Amino acid sequence: MNHRSVFIISDGTGITAGALSKLLEHFPNTKFTTTRLPFTDNDEKVQAGFEHIQKVADQDGIRPIVIMSVGNGEHRNRLKQANAYFIDLFHRFIYPLGSELNQEPLTGASIAYSSMGNSYHERMEAINFTLNHDDGMTNTGLDEAEVILIGVSRCGKTPTSIYLAMQFGIKAANYPLIPEDFERGSFPAAVEKNIDKIFGLTIKPERLHSVRSERRPDSFYASLDNCRKEIEKAENMMRRYGITWADSTSRSIEELSALILQKIRQR
Amino acid sequence: MNHRSVFIISDGTGITAGALSKLLEHFPNTKFTTTRLPFTDNDEKVQAGFEHIQKVADQDGIRPIVIMSVGNGEHRNRLKQANAYFIDLFHRFIYPLGSELNQEPLTGASIAYSSMGNSYHERMEAINFTLNHDDGMTNTGLDEAEVILIGVSRCGKTPTSIYLAMQFGIKAANYPLIPEDFERGSFPAAVEKNIDKIFGLTIKPERLHSVRSERRPDSFYASLDNCRKEIEKAENMMRRYGITWADSTSRSIEELSALILQKIRQR
Repeated sequence: MNHRSVFIISDGTGITAGALSKLLEHFPNTKFTTTRLPFTDNDEKVQAGFEHIQKVADQDGIRPIVIMSVGNGEHRNRLKQANAYFIDLFHRFIYPLGSELNQEPLTGASIAYSSMGNSYHERMEAINFTLNHDDGMTNTGLDEAEVILIGVSRCGKTPTSIYLAMQFGIKAANYPLIPEDFERGSFPAAVEKNIDKIFGLTIKPERLHSVRSERRPDSFYASLDNCRKEIEKAENMMRRYGITWADSTSRSIEELSALILQKIRQR
Repeated sequence: MNHRSVFIISDGTGITAGALSKLLEHFPNTKFTTTRLPFTDNDEKVQAGFEHIQKVADQDGIRPIVIMSVGNGEHRNRLKQANAYFIDLFHRFIYPLGSELNQEPLTGASIAYSSMGNSYHERMEAINFTLNHDDGMTNTGLDEAEVILIGVSRCGKTPTSIYLAMQFGIKAANYPLIPEDFERGSFPAAVEKNIDKIFGLTIKPERLHSVRSERRPDSFYASLDNCRKEIEKAENMMRRYGITWADSTSRSIEELSALILQKIRQR
């Protein structure tokens, strides 16, 4: 397998440039080794970054890929003297966009993620809400939720809720379906009155068995037979209520969240 | 203020294209309204996407900005018939990268975030770890942590820990500094033995007062005077131990996380 070094260099967090580096997964035949150089926002750090890239280029014998989000033109020029393939977000994206919008872009450091405005505050609120409504911890306040994820224990509700809150500022509660719910055949009143906010998650029994076994090996709870039965009952219940659900077995929390967000936005 | 409609259109989650849309914050004189069209992965959805963009272009009287990550060439061509300014991640990034790497890129849907490989598993492990070690919930297992965030209650430890876990797969524990710690003048043994993993957070008293007052208005806990004293004691303690710390008052969790990650990587 080929190998290529990658640098994420930014005058801010490097999050946008880092997100773009996910596009490297379109090239599965190359193994990429990534170095992050955030907060590269003065002459000294720029010089150190230049030397770092140059050194790796020499060691590798092939030029690294540099994804760069640096607002200062002199700093960009200095970095570009290194022997590398540059993906310069300013030249490829921000300046062309400026022409389209007929505006000069801000070029200060850390523009994208320094915003502490309303949307940031909403995201922090959503994270607090989600942590306080994790795993059916409390049913009060569900009226405030934008979505309530349900499903059997360990099917992926918690990380998905948190991702929704963190990335999109969605107040996501979650409620685990447990044997009592199956016996009763209905949700508790606080959930039932918010039935239109529910999104279900399910999972393949083999996968659930494996996930639960990591936490409680050889338990009844983790046994394949119990996993099968719980999932069957949960799916029957969701079907009876007409709840939309998704299988988390082969979906990442990012994919699940995008599905759920789409569903919420449609309402 | 100008207004511009923005579409994030993807055959997958749209997360990469969405991350790129953060660069629009370099243009503060325009108000952007964003519509996400994830999972646009068949002829029907592509046609619906095309019509949606076209309709908004007509309504706005100015062409929308479309950030597009769609692997199928025919789908891209159909979408590009809409009256819009296109930022096509395949043409701007992936194909040029393919030339550099001398490889054909994968063009299937949802490449970037469908990966359920080792790094995904690590991230999920890290999230579980972080949730189980939030707010000093348990001191056992701190040996396993990669970083332990400390600071007074409500200074931003929890959302920052979770962000570190979710985005970077870092096992981040956190430990709140409380009056008992100040009286004792030292950390509990389990924290003390992991002193080299500690990263401190601090906050301005006025901001802490405001954050705490939202939760417990008019309490001693939230009073400006108490906030001032707690922060002073916490900073003294961190100074005495030689702990690196950052002020969360005007930094987003993304900025704090990038700082912490940099510190961890230096070790």
